[in-house]
Amino acid sequence: MNYVIGIDLGGTKISCALSDFEGNILEKHIMLTEADKGEEVVLNNIIKSIKSLMLMSKKNIKDVKAIGIGAPGPLDAKNGIIVEPSNLPFKNFDIVTPIKKEFNTLVYLDNDANVAAIGEYMLGAGKGTENMIYFTVSTGVGGGAILNGKIYRGRTSNALEIGHTTIDPTSTVRCNCGNLGCLEAFASGTSIAKRACEAVISNVETTLKNYDKVTSYEVFKEAEMGDKVAISIRDTAFRYLGIGVTNTISMFDTDMIIIGGGVSKVGQVMFDKIQEVIEERGLKTMTEGCRILPAKLGTEAGVIGAVALALSEYK
Amino acid sequence: MNYVIGIDLGGTKISCALSDFEGNILEKHIMLTEADKGEEVVLNNIIKSIKSLMLMSKKNIKDVKAIGIGAPGPLDAKNGIIVEPSNLPFKNFDIVTPIKKEFNTLVYLDNDANVAAIGEYMLGAGKGTENMIYFTVSTGVGGGAILNGKIYRGRTSNALEIGHTTIDPTSTVRCNCGNLGCLEAFASGTSIAKRACEAVISNVETTLKNYDKVTSYEVFKEAEMGDKVAISIRDTAFRYLGIGVTNTISMFDTDMIIIGGGVSKVGQVMFDKIQEVIEERGLKTMTEGCRILPAKLGTEAGVIGAVALALSEYK
Repeated sequence: MNYVIGIDLGGTKISCALSDFEGNILEKHIMLTEADKGEEVVLNNIIKSIKSLMLMSKKNIKDVKAIGIGAPGPLDAKNGIIVEPSNLPFKNFDIVTPIKKEFNTLVYLDNDANVAAIGEYMLGAGKGTENMIYFTVSTGVGGGAILNGKIYRGRTSNALEIGHTTIDPTSTVRCNCGNLGCLEAFASGTSIAKRACEAVISNVETTLKNYDKVTSYEVFKEAEMGDKVAISIRDTAFRYLGIGVTNTISMFDTDMIIIGGGVSKVGQVMFDKIQEVIEERGLKTMTEGCRILPAKLGTEAGVIGAVALALSEYK
Repeated sequence: MNYVIGIDLGGTKISCALSDFEGNILEKHIMLTEADKGEEVVLNNIIKSIKSLMLMSKKNIKDVKAIGIGAPGPLDAKNGIIVEPSNLPFKNFDIVTPIKKEFNTLVYLDNDANVAAIGEYMLGAGKGTENMIYFTVSTGVGGGAILNGKIYRGRTSNALEIGHTTIDPTSTVRCNCGNLGCLEAFASGTSIAKRACEAVISNVETTLKNYDKVTSYEVFKEAEMGDKVAISIRDTAFRYLGIGVTNTISMFDTDMIIIGGGVSKVGQVMFDKIQEVIEERGLKTMTEGCRILPAKLGTEAGVIGAVALALSEYK
């Protein structure tokens, strides 16, 4: 029998999974990344992780046809190079070659958002679509595209930087990228929390408190309890997100938009706001047949996506 | 020898060209569309046009391997159907089947912007690129995408409706599509002219006059002569266009953006403004290697693009 391995390389932990060719997960393994110990330690931890997974599963590594790795960007997917992520010790590090050598199998690398897009397309909410965009709304706002049934990466493998499109040119809100008025500066979890902190330290009447630290979770909770300031912060963020989604449909003429990431856990209220904006601003010919759905893979998106990456590249 | 035919079906005239497989135009023919006489007359004019072209060229129709037709949208490229363009009498009209039957060869249909994109990619400024977006800035603002070396059409074959992405959500300027703050409502020739008319009828001091009717041409001319109102109208339009271009690079991670259409004839001043916005708002990893170039095919884009459509679909 043939297998693939998916690896979700995060700043805190390395999640590994063994899967058959149908995407059924047979075995999982999780260990600490130990990012602070440098690139060689992290690389060795990935190798250890794969070896443990094989031991646990009692399968033979010779039957593993491909390994997929999802890692934080920026990275160069074509050449298997992790460029310089903020939470890992790698700098222009070729992660594919040593793992390929160690296990004598095919190894593929892609960024988190692309890996999640491939995962949703092959094994999640996007099954059966042709043109599908995955949005992740969490600390940042990113995306991945499946076009004509294949991942679309672009020239530098950084396509779908949705979070850094200018969504309001009149805005003076500065994004982490340096630009003013980016989607990420309005709709990410970080920016929702930032707006809440601004409200708390101002004299506005709100039930938002400076607990330990306000996060988007508190904003959504207080909004649900009826706090007007929290409602306004939440709805403003989701309206901007709705514009981003609508613009994406106009550009890509998609079958489906899938939204995942921590912020999307708020659920229906987010999808309702997005739908409102689509109806207000979209081109009916394109929007009417395009479904907007929540991601299905949830917290496992990284490792299941990495399995899907291995499957899609190998096939 | 093998040939293809390209047809540019416009509201006023039908332009036809015979080409070899290298894209060398061997013969051209132009006749009136007679759009006011209804769909059957227009269809017969296309057929007449092809027959005249073959007679003039002294080639055999049996050696014509494919016919490409570029027509105004909206249309359904996959099924060869012209949906309901404003300047042609067709309504959900299958234009491909009768021409296919008449000449017993392959016939392909696509919209103006896609055809121009394929033309620039195969025979114009985009040769040798992999991921290229073509912008047309004229009466409206539209686009076409070549991704991984192939035209990308999307679910309803309407991808790249760049003109109808919301570029300023705070704006009260209404676009023809009904939405507020679309790129087309700021950067098209029509909207530049509209801003100029508003200026002329107001009491603002300007050298813009209500000649017969102000067009973007007059705005660019007066701007060049130093009129501050004209400069402001022009530069505002090009700044919005720059945001549209920058957002497109962030979404598609392109090798090249090509800009054509009547408004782009103003030349360097437009490209300079766009470049300014890209440097201000773009992600360097993506923008630094992406070239922004004027279209090369000019007024022939339609018919040469249709030739390219036939070549690309046949091969």
